[in-house]
Amino acid sequence: MNLNEIIRGRRSVRAYEDRSVPEEVIKELIDLGIQAPSASRMQPWSFVVVEDKELMREWSDRTKELLLSQMDDNAYLKPYQAMMENKKFNIFHKAPCLLLIYGDPISPAFVVDCSLAAQNIMLAAFDQGLGSCWIGFAVHIGDTPEMKHRLGVPDSYRLVAPLVLGYPRGQWPRIERREPIIFNWPK
Amino acid sequence: MNLNEIIRGRRSVRAYEDRSVPEEVIKELIDLGIQAPSASRMQPWSFVVVEDKELMREWSDRTKELLLSQMDDNAYLKPYQAMMENKKFNIFHKAPCLLLIYGDPISPAFVVDCSLAAQNIMLAAFDQGLGSCWIGFAVHIGDTPEMKHRLGVPDSYRLVAPLVLGYPRGQWPRIERREPIIFNWPK
Repeated sequence: MNLNEIIRGRRSVRAYEDRSVPEEVIKELIDLGIQAPSASRMQPWSFVVVEDKELMREWSDRTKELLLSQMDDNAYLKPYQAMMENKKFNIFHKAPCLLLIYGDPISPAFVVDCSLAAQNIMLAAFDQGLGSCWIGFAVHIGDTPEMKHRLGVPDSYRLVAPLVLGYPRGQWPRIERREPIIFNWPK
Repeated sequence: MNLNEIIRGRRSVRAYEDRSVPEEVIKELIDLGIQAPSASRMQPWSFVVVEDKELMREWSDRTKELLLSQMDDNAYLKPYQAMMENKKFNIFHKAPCLLLIYGDPISPAFVVDCSLAAQNIMLAAFDQGLGSCWIGFAVHIGDTPEMKHRLGVPDSYRLVAPLVLGYPRGQWPRIERREPIIFNWPK
């Protein structure tokens, strides 16, 4: 595939086959991630790979419980209420691999830089036949001191990009994009 | 080029030929940018294209003046003091095109989403023979109400990604990456 096909073909995949992602593939994805540019070349990214289904189930359950408890205080959560109440729903879509990018706030640009690395990874995953999905909900638990302690991540780091990876189950339709807003382009 | 070559070959380019980027190419880059995923499909990005050399020179001069005035209060700026004092230095590296991505804070994830779009654009630019560079310094002036007003950007929007684009002058060496920090990967 050329880049155009990769960028336009990538999907946020929410169902996965029950087979793991080879270790070499994950390593290659991380290596492609860190080729992203970073502010002042600080490379403020770090990684955790979770393949423990039990941990992911616990993390998902705790996230759903937490978000349901905040439902009344946060308008952004309302559309997700039924999803969070669904006992069968797993926020990680039962993917075999959760690749977490934690940023080091020693760089003021750590959120941007970790996001650039994440986009490299999502494109490269698609190029290698893998699906991916950015699981924003995972930040709530992943950024707690307790979870960082369990994962061996220094408390000062912040979870930026929780990405699930795996072999897609089913076909995933393209999400239509709105026409881009261009506020100004004098010609 | 395949994706591996594109991701590994992209450089932050800081010298450009004096020729403009065709309009169709800029449009295509924006269209590839907005193929990035976004939280809750909110697509909180918007664009401004600046090709006015006089405006870029003014923006650069004001940025240098501003950063020099903050030099003593911000340790991150110290390494850039000589650069900012250099009358000949232009923060946009005299690129012919400045593509600005402003994010709509109506989405809590606007910084991430605009960054994902920016990485698509930087990769696609390289794929098309263009250089790019994320000009973090440009945010200071670009996020002022006055500059947003001049550019027609609503005051509530925030400048996330100021990207220069153009045809590279010279060869740009690869910046070595540190081995990635992997805090945890039970095997």
